[in-house]
Amino acid sequence: MAEEKNGSVPAVTRSEARQTGITRETLIALHETDGVGRISIATILLHGLKKGKDSLKHASHFMPMDWKDMGLHASQASAIVASLTPEAAVRRARRHETREMKVVTYLDEEYPDLLYQINDPPWILYYKGKWELTSNPAIAIVGTRLATGYGRKMTEDIAAGCAQRMTVVSGLARGIDAAAHSGALRGDYGTIAVLAGGVDVCYPPENKSLYRELAVHGLIISESPPDTILKPGLFPLRNRIIAGLSFGVIVVEAAQRSGALITADLALGYNRDIFVVPGQVTSPRSKGALEYFRKGANPVLDESDIFQAYSHRLPPRELFAISLPETASADSETAVLTPDESRIYNILLDQPCSRDDLTVQSGMTFGHLHSVLLSLQIKRRIHQQPGSVYHVL
Amino acid sequence: MAEEKNGSVPAVTRSEARQTGITRETLIALHETDGVGRISIATILLHGLKKGKDSLKHASHFMPMDWKDMGLHASQASAIVASLTPEAAVRRARRHETREMKVVTYLDEEYPDLLYQINDPPWILYYKGKWELTSNPAIAIVGTRLATGYGRKMTEDIAAGCAQRMTVVSGLARGIDAAAHSGALRGDYGTIAVLAGGVDVCYPPENKSLYRELAVHGLIISESPPDTILKPGLFPLRNRIIAGLSFGVIVVEAAQRSGALITADLALGYNRDIFVVPGQVTSPRSKGALEYFRKGANPVLDESDIFQAYSHRLPPRELFAISLPETASADSETAVLTPDESRIYNILLDQPCSRDDLTVQSGMTFGHLHSVLLSLQIKRRIHQQPGSVYHVL
Repeated sequence: MAEEKNGSVPAVTRSEARQTGITRETLIALHETDGVGRISIATILLHGLKKGKDSLKHASHFMPMDWKDMGLHASQASAIVASLTPEAAVRRARRHETREMKVVTYLDEEYPDLLYQINDPPWILYYKGKWELTSNPAIAIVGTRLATGYGRKMTEDIAAGCAQRMTVVSGLARGIDAAAHSGALRGDYGTIAVLAGGVDVCYPPENKSLYRELAVHGLIISESPPDTILKPGLFPLRNRIIAGLSFGVIVVEAAQRSGALITADLALGYNRDIFVVPGQVTSPRSKGALEYFRKGANPVLDESDIFQAYSHRLPPRELFAISLPETASADSETAVLTPDESRIYNILLDQPCSRDDLTVQSGMTFGHLHSVLLSLQIKRRIHQQPGSVYHVL
Repeated sequence: MAEEKNGSVPAVTRSEARQTGITRETLIALHETDGVGRISIATILLHGLKKGKDSLKHASHFMPMDWKDMGLHASQASAIVASLTPEAAVRRARRHETREMKVVTYLDEEYPDLLYQINDPPWILYYKGKWELTSNPAIAIVGTRLATGYGRKMTEDIAAGCAQRMTVVSGLARGIDAAAHSGALRGDYGTIAVLAGGVDVCYPPENKSLYRELAVHGLIISESPPDTILKPGLFPLRNRIIAGLSFGVIVVEAAQRSGALITADLALGYNRDIFVVPGQVTSPRSKGALEYFRKGANPVLDESDIFQAYSHRLPPRELFAISLPETASADSETAVLTPDESRIYNILLDQPCSRDDLTVQSGMTFGHLHSVLLSLQIKRRIHQQPGSVYHVL
């Protein structure tokens, strides 16, 4: 893989690729040959398709000339020939085995449907963990690496909520990504980390324990072969897989021109939905995310907004034990108040008020108001400040 | 006015009202008669309409029996007769004059078109200031009385921005309302305060200086006659006028069940738009506002979102000298950076990075990166911390 620039990859459908007779072993070998990139592989497949059925079936016996005839450089041709020897195949298989990674190719039935639909799907995916997570409905959560406490909390909560009915996809980066994976590990539907480098290397290293947990309870995916050297260009390629695997992308916090927005832009290009967690307009950490409202993004306050958006694409709710601790506790809080107590409490929720203010606003008699205020104090819901000013606790 | 419960007011069109021959003096007298409310006035007009053209023209000569025949109580009938004497009319006119308030009735051409369209428009409006502001396109801004610094800042900025092309309507309450009026006073299109009590009394008293400025440079409106005693029921009635005068309502910060949300709900009922200024989902002051996203509210980051929403209903932009100091300065900030400097600056905007991190992320050579970092430090855009970690200033 790599060495080629980002240009658009010619479209080859899976059935076209299969018609060429190319084996998954050949596809993996091509992908792992230095100097052969995504576009070269597409070129080879298109040539094979033109030549006729099964024309690439015996690619391991091709001479350098055969590869050059497809328009490849001499250096690429000889590298491919070396890569397709039985010895090279054994070395590759052993390397995958020792690094404990498995491989799914574009040709395979288990290739994720949604990812197949993007305009430049990866030819090869390496993984560690539970591949079956890729058949779940999935939602991506992305954002800045330098998240605020607010951003991290929202991410964890929304990820945990979403993971009750969807698999959460992110990039194992610092900040929002890490919070998304941690939160989602609490839900039944788990989480997928898409890495820019090989799945056998944890980057960034500080997420090591998360990485280990994902390798067992979640799924770690990458397009990069083992021993790939990390470079900036790999991150946007990784981001297209995050967007490609998911129904939509939730952007939590992102400064203007933040890397997370590449994922969001790719998702827009793939006709996937964008969701934005509201934040303060004046926060530089929110600016980039909030701008997506102007591109039609939907606000998300909690997981229910996501479930609502995909109600027709999610398994029915009754299959799941959904716990909504926050809503429940909020309800039970007001449940213990009488209607008049609630009324006063809600006035005070808006702002602290003096007893005189409350008399005007509630329309209650002084005596009745007095007893309601007393009761709210006993229930430890409000507090009286000097000067008979009341505020909520 | 008043004494009646909030029930729905039967619809009487302006031309129907005029057909009855009722004079604006009679309408004002009825409105200012204790015990005669909005529904009684509608009942009187509907009876007059049934009786035929000009049947209410000589209402000032009616006997109590005539009023009782329309279904009014004996006490209402005698109060109305007393209210329609020439002496009472003189007293009323003198009172309006000494309080420096003017009156617009439902019958008048200058009655605001948008307000006329709601299902229970006021029969009478009292005002101080520039009535002509009611013919401008208008946007309401409402929110909690206990605003945060963020809420106040956003309100002032958005109000000042909107007031370049629209008149800003609010309720002169503490917090968001006050910030909306102050901000809008900076724009050419000014601001309208709708009060729950009479326009001759400033409530809350702490907004006295704002009130005085509005009486001269803006407009203060109320449905309440002079000497109205403030009570809770008047606030929702006031809120319907705020919503009724406006194309839409911007909710800035509002706790759940905050009074500001009454205005938003009324606006939804009148098919007006709701806009919400994003805030933190975890902030109790934002919760009520953010809920409106689920009812189809549009996010507003600055006035451009409002102008965009009403582009077809606003006078063309070239008529106005629009100053966008913030955007301009943001542009000029980045303008002084070279492309490579911008790239590094934007990476650092996302999070502080070490020089090694920057090498990986930028793909620049060490030497070039070094000179870019130096230049950004000279331009005082970034700062180097111990350990060669850089962050933006």
